[in-house]
Amino acid sequence: MKKVAILAAPGFEEIELMAPLDILRRLNMDVVLAGVQSDKVVSTHEVTVSTDTMLDKLHADKLDALILPGGAGSWVLRDTPEVIHLVKKMHEAGKLVAAICAAPIVLAKAGLVRDRNVTAYPAQDVYRELNEAGAHIVKDENVVLDGNMLTANGPGAAMLFGYSIGEYLGEDLQVAQLKEQMCYTGL
Amino acid sequence: MKKVAILAAPGFEEIELMAPLDILRRLNMDVVLAGVQSDKVVSTHEVTVSTDTMLDKLHADKLDALILPGGAGSWVLRDTPEVIHLVKKMHEAGKLVAAICAAPIVLAKAGLVRDRNVTAYPAQDVYRELNEAGAHIVKDENVVLDGNMLTANGPGAAMLFGYSIGEYLGEDLQVAQLKEQMCYTGL
Repeated sequence: MKKVAILAAPGFEEIELMAPLDILRRLNMDVVLAGVQSDKVVSTHEVTVSTDTMLDKLHADKLDALILPGGAGSWVLRDTPEVIHLVKKMHEAGKLVAAICAAPIVLAKAGLVRDRNVTAYPAQDVYRELNEAGAHIVKDENVVLDGNMLTANGPGAAMLFGYSIGEYLGEDLQVAQLKEQMCYTGL
Repeated sequence: MKKVAILAAPGFEEIELMAPLDILRRLNMDVVLAGVQSDKVVSTHEVTVSTDTMLDKLHADKLDALILPGGAGSWVLRDTPEVIHLVKKMHEAGKLVAAICAAPIVLAKAGLVRDRNVTAYPAQDVYRELNEAGAHIVKDENVVLDGNMLTANGPGAAMLFGYSIGEYLGEDLQVAQLKEQMCYTGL
């Protein structure tokens, strides 16, 4: 069973956290929601969610993928050294790191985006951090996969982001069935 | 400011609750998440969310719209007399009642779907309840509006469901801008 952690920092974007969680649990993956700073986390639009575990309980060697939701929480993730450490460990082990919306700035801070294709939320401050870190920003794509790094550009792409993570982890056929089961008619 | 209530029953489908909440709060509407049975509610895929208020604090005359998410929680909503009472009051007052996935069975139980166009999750048990209540089921549509009743067919349509509620409540132009801001490239 594939094990996936999703980080919940204060100010996380609701859809970006819930869509991959929902989709990957439907695919019978072991998905843990890990709190950053606390185990009850308030989202960008004021929803309080209880987490399953905490960031300091996560170990890269026990995970197959790490997911970083966007929203205001992206800056909290970027500025939390333990998050940067975990992201680097996952990357070094060749495991999937997936970030959506503003969260690719965390990958930039971790020094992982130089000459890599990434997409992100099209805001000046986000693009600036990615440019300064040497990323090749792919505009007008909802989801971009480059090696073991998957990025998406905003909440409107959250479901596609979730499905893409499922496909990366080896469940192509199941993902196709799941899209149909979920009445998904998007990209 | 438009006031909208979303009902959170045990077993609610995460995306179907979060997408309209997120979208309507982005549109600066006053969205309250109301607990059914308790103020900490566990979703279909085991996420615990804290609510803003409880069902018994809601009054139809103070609301512009009521949203019923789907998932296993749909049957809890259907079997809660206070929910049926509130749905009927909203409908009688000509206010929007919106239901997604399996939740249109709540509208069936409330006796509101006879000769009305509705969509719903394409499962036999859901369709049976709608048929028995005299609904005209519109298949292969993600979202259907008939008068002051809006229905959607599954989690894949949750964002479109949220945008459609925003448009119904009079924010067409803002919704178009919001779709772009959210990098939404769906229907």
